[in-house]
Amino acid sequence: MAYQQTFEIRTRGRGTTEITAEVARIVRTAGIATAIAQVFVQHTSCSVMITENADPAVRRDLEILAARWAPDADRAYEHDSEGDDDMAAHARSLLAGSSVSVPVRNGALLLGTWQGIYLWEHRTGAQLRRVVVTLVG
Amino acid sequence: MAYQQTFEIRTRGRGTTEITAEVARIVRTAGIATAIAQVFVQHTSCSVMITENADPAVRRDLEILAARWAPDADRAYEHDSEGDDDMAAHARSLLAGSSVSVPVRNGALLLGTWQGIYLWEHRTGAQLRRVVVTLVG
Amino acid sequence: MAYQQTFEIRTRGRGTTEITAEVARIVRTAGIATAIAQVFVQHTSCSVMITENADPAVRRDLEILAARWAPDADRAYEHDSEGDDDMAAHARSLLAGSSVSVPVRNGALLLGTWQGIYLWEHRTGAQLRRVVVTLVG
Repeated sequence: MAYQQTFEIRTRGRGTTEITAEVARIVRTAGIATAIAQVFVQHTSCSVMITENADPAVRRDLEILAARWAPDADRAYEHDSEGDDDMAAHARSLLAGSSVSVPVRNGALLLGTWQGIYLWEHRTGAQLRRVVVTLVG
Repeated sequence: MAYQQTFEIRTRGRGTTEITAEVARIVRTAGIATAIAQVFVQHTSCSVMITENADPAVRRDLEILAARWAPDADRAYEHDSEGDDDMAAHARSLLAGSSVSVPVRNGALLLGTWQGIYLWEHRTGAQLRRVVVTLVG
Repeated sequence: MAYQQTFEIRTRGRGTTEITAEVARIVRTAGIATAIAQVFVQHTSCSVMITENADPAVRRDLEILAARWAPDADRAYEHDSEGDDDMAAHARSLLAGSSVSVPVRNGALLLGTWQGIYLWEHRTGAQLRRVVVTLVG
């Protein structure tokens, strides 16, 4: 069995937006008892990640490390057609990747207590992002 | 078809534990000829990764690079409620991620000769970790 | 339903080779309407990644950042049995990982406009790489 649903998120620039509840709702709608649920973004300058959901400081600290990994406006970059954050956003998107997959049991996401699913925007400006949730089981 | 099984691992602090044999056993039990097998940890301070299985020095060298990417006790971190390795562990877990997926053919893991599946503990202290293996095919 | 097909690529050393068209062809052959398509390499010194497909400079810039993350011949490395690029290649392969998964809708890859699928070779010499594409849906 397979089920797929798409939704959009308007981000407010660089930072994280929790989407666990929206994904959980789609998983319940799918009604597949045992499955893999994949959460995928159709973009190359934002990511989906699973990380700690209790202390927002964790995500602020991840921003610091992501900026070290791929600084904005690094003079080594060749690609900068959309501005100082353009290449940095593509490189940051590699860290967490374009998708996460979560096991499903009894028709519900089998996340650990402290795991949340986040859309991680890497562009400094607001963007409209398309998220595809696919369950197979 | 879908099949799911969970197991626990007691880690001895930061470092890797090979879980290829345990995952392979679950895949054989599932008895699904062609599938994707997902190995997922329900935690945000350890990872699952696929890496070279012949020379343990590879995994020691990965520790060195992971410590450069996210040093313990970095003064830039805001989050340190569980100690000097707390934020570093969350950041390290992003490198390899919460899960890997491996193709299954003829009811067996289709890994390359030099690929092993490892649980990578990022906390410095021993932890009990829960691993969920899900096959869909 | 599940479908699996394998193909080989001869790389010309470090750099990216786009494989979107080859994966799309396999997805069409599979004929599964709604699915997850996984693209997996059976190696620990190359990756599969999804990144920007319009400007080749993006992939050149990713090489620069990958070399900062895991420099060749770093004196801290213990593992160097296959040369100066050996350990760097294993570490680089962790960045993007051994596989990507892409949703399938109406029997076709559901990629965004600017997303391409690339095999990313991390060894400096030419290699023959095996790619496994698995669809479940």
